[in-house]
Amino acid sequence: MHNKGFDELLGVYRDGLLDNTLPFWIRNCVDREHGGFMTALNRDGSLLDTDKGIWQQGRFTWLLATLYNTVEQRPEWLELAKSGIDFIRRYGFDDDGRMFFMVTRDGRPLRKRRYVFSEAFAAIALAAYAKAASDSEAAQQAHDLFHSFIRYTTTPGLIEPKGVPSTRPCKSIGYPMITINVAQVLRDTIGESSGARDAEYDEWIDRSIEEIRTDFVKPDLEVVMETVGTSGEIIDHFDGRTLNPGHAIEAAWFILDEVKRRGNDTDLIKLGTSMLDWMLNRGWDDEHGGILYFRDLKGLPVQEYWHDMKFWWPHNESIIATLLAYQLTGDKKYAERHRAVHDWAYNHFSDPEYGEWYGYLHRDGRVSVHLKGNLWKGPFHLPRMQLYCWKLCEEMAGAHVSD
Amino acid sequence: MHNKGFDELLGVYRDGLLDNTLPFWIRNCVDREHGGFMTALNRDGSLLDTDKGIWQQGRFTWLLATLYNTVEQRPEWLELAKSGIDFIRRYGFDDDGRMFFMVTRDGRPLRKRRYVFSEAFAAIALAAYAKAASDSEAAQQAHDLFHSFIRYTTTPGLIEPKGVPSTRPCKSIGYPMITINVAQVLRDTIGESSGARDAEYDEWIDRSIEEIRTDFVKPDLEVVMETVGTSGEIIDHFDGRTLNPGHAIEAAWFILDEVKRRGNDTDLIKLGTSMLDWMLNRGWDDEHGGILYFRDLKGLPVQEYWHDMKFWWPHNESIIATLLAYQLTGDKKYAERHRAVHDWAYNHFSDPEYGEWYGYLHRDGRVSVHLKGNLWKGPFHLPRMQLYCWKLCEEMAGAHVSD
Repeated sequence: MHNKGFDELLGVYRDGLLDNTLPFWIRNCVDREHGGFMTALNRDGSLLDTDKGIWQQGRFTWLLATLYNTVEQRPEWLELAKSGIDFIRRYGFDDDGRMFFMVTRDGRPLRKRRYVFSEAFAAIALAAYAKAASDSEAAQQAHDLFHSFIRYTTTPGLIEPKGVPSTRPCKSIGYPMITINVAQVLRDTIGESSGARDAEYDEWIDRSIEEIRTDFVKPDLEVVMETVGTSGEIIDHFDGRTLNPGHAIEAAWFILDEVKRRGNDTDLIKLGTSMLDWMLNRGWDDEHGGILYFRDLKGLPVQEYWHDMKFWWPHNESIIATLLAYQLTGDKKYAERHRAVHDWAYNHFSDPEYGEWYGYLHRDGRVSVHLKGNLWKGPFHLPRMQLYCWKLCEEMAGAHVSD
Repeated sequence: MHNKGFDELLGVYRDGLLDNTLPFWIRNCVDREHGGFMTALNRDGSLLDTDKGIWQQGRFTWLLATLYNTVEQRPEWLELAKSGIDFIRRYGFDDDGRMFFMVTRDGRPLRKRRYVFSEAFAAIALAAYAKAASDSEAAQQAHDLFHSFIRYTTTPGLIEPKGVPSTRPCKSIGYPMITINVAQVLRDTIGESSGARDAEYDEWIDRSIEEIRTDFVKPDLEVVMETVGTSGEIIDHFDGRTLNPGHAIEAAWFILDEVKRRGNDTDLIKLGTSMLDWMLNRGWDDEHGGILYFRDLKGLPVQEYWHDMKFWWPHNESIIATLLAYQLTGDKKYAERHRAVHDWAYNHFSDPEYGEWYGYLHRDGRVSVHLKGNLWKGPFHLPRMQLYCWKLCEEMAGAHVSD
């Protein structure tokens, strides 16, 4: 029954990636003069701003190298990935080894943030490129950046805190979840040649999953918290009550993805699918469809006034998570949820005229701003979803055929 | 013709302030146990969060003391203002003399920001209280805080920059405009007793108006910029192009208010009314009415995805600015614009059931979140508008009667 559906979907994801999303970015964001990518694009792909986000340099480089590694060894993809790597190496780092957040077109630093996500995205870029180009120096640099990321995110006080930490110490799910994903990418790309590295990546994945399970997942409340006290306590204030369903669902599929690599771990399946179930329940908008950006733990007003907008990326993460949950469990409810999220997202975010997706919709699905890229939106969540789901559909089609 | 209209409006503002806004906050936000105010209130006035924003401690204290100074010497107002002053003095300051941004209910520090707006709001609170309570120590403290605010906002590098300043140095209209307002309040309250202080306040008002005129106002483009290069250059990137009409209109009425104190300065009237005209043109939403939060200088997409929401405070500032422009010029177009902003705002923001105003609407006027207060919204913009416009209507009614 689902076989035909997933065959069709396979084409939607594969062709969407190769014939729509990727050409949109390659045509419009590549800086042939200074290297790297300018992702601040208007609806039609015209340039809105020449400044370069370092996140997007890492993310697009990761995508290009990953396509080269897993889809086809197109010289153009490797060449563009090299342009991203060169730009990151030349302009991404401050003198203290920390990375910038934003630089000018020609690489002069504009902003550095206390968060270390630039490092995380540069690490996956370097690792995927190391594999594609057989570049052992890039592999070592990726591994070193992973260590730096881990050191900053696990050493109390090393990242300058936003608040006064002694009064109400807290932590966010962002770091353990990104640790899982970065370690997974590094294991897939630069880990195979070295048993010691693999063991280290496995260890950090285990630790991070356990931290999420112990401190952020609250089965009695059927919720995944975004911010908790350092021992997992619920903080009954605006920030502590604010839930980010899309983020939690992203963490859920990172965990479910680990199941595929470890074989049938029922505990992990239960953890990942519960996180997905609860946060889709919390985030899904029964009135207009789609996934709301923020929710309050107790249903109270959220302090962030744009709380009820629909962003592209939670929908990308939810399309992956529901399809993966279906593959792992065979439970038809996930096929149905996948279809619901997929249909709402494709009906509201995609731009049939100029390609790619809008990023920011009002609650009722109207487009709030027509731009296709900025510091946060670039060639990452949508094409990652298309690639991941294309491959999932391929596996599922194959599995059914061989039945 | 307008006489009757303004008589009626006088009642709307006065009664709204004294019978609706003020009782809402006094009933719900006063902390009888620890002193100070908890302004994170839900629609019905129930408490959403006990944390205390320092901005709101200063702002409500200023309002209460100002009411005592200008409306009626109600002991309750002075008593509550004293509670705010005591809380600010006891818990508002870090060891380095800088002020916090947010503390717990019992005054333990939660967050300090690099901006010095806590200092600005504490200065006007202390100054208004100093006059109300004849407290010379409070007067001195207000004057010292004003100096500290000026020192931080005019000494390059003293406030830790958000970006890497050498690459693209820039400045925001926020500091000169707040300087005008703080200096005006201090002159009105603690300046009368000392000629030297008055001269200093006048000097900073002059400097700030000239900085706005020279660097932020662009007559050729009919626009007031929010962020420019250090010599007033337009920065053709997302941040540099982003206009904040409500902010510019607030600056406009601070300037027009200065006209009232200096007599008929046609240059200043032209500056203030041009700023108002241009930014009302840029900000007014022809489709749904009301004032949009952000606009792009060139009409391009704005990076802030909540750009098209309607916030309460730009409407408060615009109601003041248009009424004041009408009083100063007699030009009927300002009476019409005042009526248009007033009507849209009262029709969409006010809550007839529980009182006060909502803060955050979608573009089409639907309420986005029902809360009445948080770290940014408290007893300030709405009651300041009601008080200011009540007094303006009184003056206009008197002027017409005496014709």
